Amino acid sequence: MPRDKVLVAQGGGPTAVINQSLVGVVLEARKSRNVGRVYGAFHGVRGIVDEDFANLSRESETNLEKVAATPSSALGSTRDKPDEKYCRDILASIQAHDIGKFFYIGGNDSSDTLRILSEQARKKRYPLRCVHVPKTVDNDLVLNDHTPGYPSAARFVAGAFTGVSLDVRAIPGVYVGVVMGRHAGFLTAASALGRHHENDGPHLIYLPERTFNTKAFLRDVKLVYKRLGHCVIAVSEGIHDGRGVPIATKLSDKVERDAHGNVQLSGSGALGDMLAKNIKDTLGIKRVRADTLGYLQRSFLECVSDVDQMEARRAGVMAMRFAAQGKDGSVTIRRKPGETYKIEYKLARLASVAGKTRSMPTNLIAKNGTDITPAFRKYLRPLLGSHMPVHKHLSDKRVRKILG
Amino acid sequence: MPRDKVLVAQGGGPTAVINQSLVGVVLEARKSRNVGRVYGAFHGVRGIVDEDFANLSRESETNLEKVAATPSSALGSTRDKPDEKYCRDILASIQAHDIGKFFYIGGNDSSDTLRILSEQARKKRYPLRCVHVPKTVDNDLVLNDHTPGYPSAARFVAGAFTGVSLDVRAIPGVYVGVVMGRHAGFLTAASALGRHHENDGPHLIYLPERTFNTKAFLRDVKLVYKRLGHCVIAVSEGIHDGRGVPIATKLSDKVERDAHGNVQLSGSGALGDMLAKNIKDTLGIKRVRADTLGYLQRSFLECVSDVDQMEARRAGVMAMRFAAQGKDGSVTIRRKPGETYKIEYKLARLASVAGKTRSMPTNLIAKNGTDITPAFRKYLRPLLGSHMPVHKHLSDKRVRKILG
Repeated sequence: MPRDKVLVAQGGGPTAVINQSLVGVVLEARKSRNVGRVYGAFHGVRGIVDEDFANLSRESETNLEKVAATPSSALGSTRDKPDEKYCRDILASIQAHDIGKFFYIGGNDSSDTLRILSEQARKKRYPLRCVHVPKTVDNDLVLNDHTPGYPSAARFVAGAFTGVSLDVRAIPGVYVGVVMGRHAGFLTAASALGRHHENDGPHLIYLPERTFNTKAFLRDVKLVYKRLGHCVIAVSEGIHDGRGVPIATKLSDKVERDAHGNVQLSGSGALGDMLAKNIKDTLGIKRVRADTLGYLQRSFLECVSDVDQMEARRAGVMAMRFAAQGKDGSVTIRRKPGETYKIEYKLARLASVAGKTRSMPTNLIAKNGTDITPAFRKYLRPLLGSHMPVHKHLSDKRVRKILG
Repeated sequence: MPRDKVLVAQGGGPTAVINQSLVGVVLEARKSRNVGRVYGAFHGVRGIVDEDFANLSRESETNLEKVAATPSSALGSTRDKPDEKYCRDILASIQAHDIGKFFYIGGNDSSDTLRILSEQARKKRYPLRCVHVPKTVDNDLVLNDHTPGYPSAARFVAGAFTGVSLDVRAIPGVYVGVVMGRHAGFLTAASALGRHHENDGPHLIYLPERTFNTKAFLRDVKLVYKRLGHCVIAVSEGIHDGRGVPIATKLSDKVERDAHGNVQLSGSGALGDMLAKNIKDTLGIKRVRADTLGYLQRSFLECVSDVDQMEARRAGVMAMRFAAQGKDGSVTIRRKPGETYKIEYKLARLASVAGKTRSMPTNLIAKNGTDITPAFRKYLRPLLGSHMPVHKHLSDKRVRKILG
């Protein structure tokens, strides 16, 4: 007789659509005759070890649909990175509660946890299906064309840069906007999709895929400022020097690290402020401003891609279907060749996704290293969804001077 | 014969709807048989002195409507604060171009410029109608129930805090969000409209209307964190100590001031970072993050109040109508008494609005000084417009523990 309980959890940083995947798993599981109860673990793997479970079988479909449309992880999340011992504790709790299918919605760290867990279960001959549902605003999971959460964050970043570029055009100066993305520049690159007309910002884009050189940066800014009288810059929080040291960590002697050994980059304005000070001091430009887009990027209720919502939901549904077929693995999104945007969901081996990081392919980054290519625009545009607003400028019909 | 040319300009910080007012003036002027050409000055008063005019009579209505829906000042703006001499130069240009009506869309500084200009024109017996069209995300113009630009910025701030509160709930810690508003706390207070359920953030709100005391602040944070395990804080960039010194200026020995003598507060993450460091060091809480909402607040294309759009447009239209009646003054928005939200536009004397600053009335601020009252919610809700998204949490149906 099959273990009939299903468990779902959410790991890592929240996104605007991660609850779509959660509800996708839950509703698909509830449809199945082979599933009894559906549990959710609070705060990811931490909640499994603590047996901190919600009975999601008792949630109304109406409430679930409202939760699906709500950003951030409704079950809560965790930054815990389980080792072998931690995974044994997870398995003990899973066995005690007679759980037969476990879905972990998260990034590459979450898929690595599933990989260990799946192995341990097999060794103990405990029949557990482990399926990873992809999620990350960084868009850095291998084998995926893109990952749920990224399109909505990208739409926010594009919209933010449309707005600040119009703002900086109105009151000229230099603006530095710092965007999330530790190793992959996909989200920072999305700033370019905010451009609709000639000379729209951002005028310079700095990605972690390229070495950041302060001298070259200042030269670039100077040139744009000279040409347009203002300059809008998108900078990834993950920019680093030639030795791979993040520029952000050079600012402080006290560096905060999470359980994965990652240095804290978000939640501080220090990188933007330092770059702004550098421009002000070196180039003698008076009005230099820096914003760090921060947590708004991944949780803004009013700026969500409908394509992202649909795909995140479907990723959850497909995860349950793969598990029902007795499979372990990581759900991946592949784009079908052809002019029309179409995707399919394929199950990859956990080991082939787990712990790996994808960065932007070279063909998406302009040769000068400070812009994107038309190929990137073509890649991202369909993901941003419907009703993308387009701004307009006044046409330039000048009046002849009289006084001179 | 009446001087038949109309001039319009935009001053101060851009907003999401300031182009609605511009287009309101332009289209209403173009309807009038007594108006010849409609000019726009680039970069506010600076463009008038420089005779840098756009011929807005030659803009198509289609393009104007698209510009109206675009955030930030389409004509460009300025931070120049004209003195008597500067105003004489403005008047010389206005006379040379035979302009009979001048509309300045801006805050209290812009209305002060109009006040001086209107006086000078009268003294010189030059027939010039000067009408001020209100605009400011700070919502700090006297005699107005509220000012165009504020509702959209408030909607952005409410949405931002909804999102980050869900985020911080998912990965617990302390979050500090710094909001625009030098002297008035209206925009920071709008963060409270992001709350829909018990214990939703922001849990603490610090306004420039109250003295900021670091000790009391840390005590407040500690209490909320102890009770909920996380804490979301909204802080106005204008918070100050007992002597009125902004906390932000205590951080740096080099202080930047604009032409109005205002210290630079926006465009830097320093205040948020300092408060976060203070919480971390004093309370020993590990995960403390700070975001400065920055320029996104006033220029975000996808988060605009439709009520704000309509009112900003109407303010421009009414300005033209008042001028056509031969009047000078400042267009003000008054709310009619009664349960249903209704407003009317009244013309006030320029001197009664010029250079004055309104702050939040006491009845809108909670007694403890770190929250708003139900009266503020009632005041702000209708301004935010239609289709405000509402988030939902999972209901708390826990599973009984087996292991422990």
